[in-house]
Amino acid sequence: MSRSYELDADVVHYAWDHSLEPRLTIDPGDTVTFHTRDAADNFYSIDSTAEDVIRKGPFKGHPLTGPVHVRGAAPGDVLAVEIVSMKLPANFGWTAINPGRGLLPAEELPGPYLQIWDLSDGQFARMKHRGDIAIPIAPFPGVLGNALAESGALSTAPPRETGGNMDNKHLTVGSTVYLPVQWDGALFSTGDAHAAQGDGEACITAIETWSTLTLKFDLLPGTDFEEPRARIPGPLAPVVNTSGYYATSAQGPDLYANAQQAIRYMIHHLTTERGLSWHEAYVICSVAVDLKISEIVDAPNWLVSAFLPDSIFVG
Amino acid sequence: MSRSYELDADVVHYAWDHSLEPRLTIDPGDTVTFHTRDAADNFYSIDSTAEDVIRKGPFKGHPLTGPVHVRGAAPGDVLAVEIVSMKLPANFGWTAINPGRGLLPAEELPGPYLQIWDLSDGQFARMKHRGDIAIPIAPFPGVLGNALAESGALSTAPPRETGGNMDNKHLTVGSTVYLPVQWDGALFSTGDAHAAQGDGEACITAIETWSTLTLKFDLLPGTDFEEPRARIPGPLAPVVNTSGYYATSAQGPDLYANAQQAIRYMIHHLTTERGLSWHEAYVICSVAVDLKISEIVDAPNWLVSAFLPDSIFVG
Repeated sequence: MSRSYELDADVVHYAWDHSLEPRLTIDPGDTVTFHTRDAADNFYSIDSTAEDVIRKGPFKGHPLTGPVHVRGAAPGDVLAVEIVSMKLPANFGWTAINPGRGLLPAEELPGPYLQIWDLSDGQFARMKHRGDIAIPIAPFPGVLGNALAESGALSTAPPRETGGNMDNKHLTVGSTVYLPVQWDGALFSTGDAHAAQGDGEACITAIETWSTLTLKFDLLPGTDFEEPRARIPGPLAPVVNTSGYYATSAQGPDLYANAQQAIRYMIHHLTTERGLSWHEAYVICSVAVDLKISEIVDAPNWLVSAFLPDSIFVG
Repeated sequence: MSRSYELDADVVHYAWDHSLEPRLTIDPGDTVTFHTRDAADNFYSIDSTAEDVIRKGPFKGHPLTGPVHVRGAAPGDVLAVEIVSMKLPANFGWTAINPGRGLLPAEELPGPYLQIWDLSDGQFARMKHRGDIAIPIAPFPGVLGNALAESGALSTAPPRETGGNMDNKHLTVGSTVYLPVQWDGALFSTGDAHAAQGDGEACITAIETWSTLTLKFDLLPGTDFEEPRARIPGPLAPVVNTSGYYATSAQGPDLYANAQQAIRYMIHHLTTERGLSWHEAYVICSVAVDLKISEIVDAPNWLVSAFLPDSIFVG
């Protein structure tokens, strides 16, 4: 018999640490509804501005809901986590540009910026003052992960072998993610809900928000994946991939530099052809533009492309 | 009044070289139908085998049809190239694995391999002996490019600032690609038709074949893009993105190493879960698996994901 549980967001943790006391112990087959805080730990409000980005101070780790101990999970197993449902209870989300973080170097940035998104219609994220832009909401949890075998309080910022801050936008409702177990009980936690994101998350924040996330857990003993895998049940990006695209690309021997350059070209396009400010353009790159590796074999130049969906323009 | 022209594939060139005599001079607004040879310059037949991959010898450049001189095109302009139609006249295509080329290092490869694809039904590329696999045909030209300002015979292998071997699989019929002009007349050439490819082209060959390609040319004076851009008229990958996906991913500070690792995981999946040989699995990675940059900001680990479409499995 499988059971259902609920975990509030009153208690969170800000690091991966296998010495943390589990908040809940479940069996494989059980379902847990997680309430998750946003990545800025309740700092922003719908009235926040760019000044708050500076005022907030350095990132102290994603506030994560968990850990959940899964009975029987042991190193060498894989935890299968199905995303059963995901609701966004807040009426807003935010995207912050903070010089020194994100794909483009600080010296290229005109300063900090905060974009507040209106999520109240439940279907589109809307920018104030830009009624011609509506980002289809396609929510997913940025962080889904198990504790690591390594001891100590480990940063939640990077993704790791057990998952964590993967920011894989295709892990939407219906998907199952397979997370390696490195510690007895798995010690799973989640958080960092995104209402929408582009592949790459150029400016380091997506449309950040809160969530009520229901996950179903199963155990695959002895599967021994080295890193996460996933199964997505239907076509990718179904609410966005509905019309055409504008694409930029950059070639060269360094994929990272190519990605930066493709994003610069896209910012140029958005500012010159769509009338966006530099900040708005960088935000759109982060929440809606997809970075693809077009080719990684035609030595010495790999090609990274950035794809902007027409579907976000509604004006 | 715009005109239509045709260029056969009896004469080809194997390098970018602005000193080449144009085969044709056109005006902006004109249309040209190009007959293109495959990347192996007519070497393979439908009966070819892995031994032919070795026998073929080193790559001598893509056989390109052109160059076409566009009247009035000058450095600082952009040539807009619309893909009006693309037909694949051959009844087969091929994918070669040649140790020392492609994303995975030679020492990991069990040897050379050649996959012949049956293209005769015009809709799917089929592997002999694997009736359960059918790759939806989504043809595009691997090479679309203008001559470079740099003098001499320059390799066609890498993509360059004026386009060339971009291997951008989304440049299918209806798309327009915007290519920087670096030399008077642009001196446009094309070739390297692909019946299908994954983003990344892991093993360095897609489903390689011949084409009859109709392109319409326009000139955007003084646009001065530094690298190619494109407009895609409809949803991406419409014939492939019709059902679910299996995804692998790899994190770490080096996008290239992450891509290699994500492809290794996908080969593991295809061999263990789908019963493919190692070679068949690597071929599927090249012709159907998409490499995405899921995030490039969560320092120090970027995440590259490989997405395998369920739609290619029909058994």
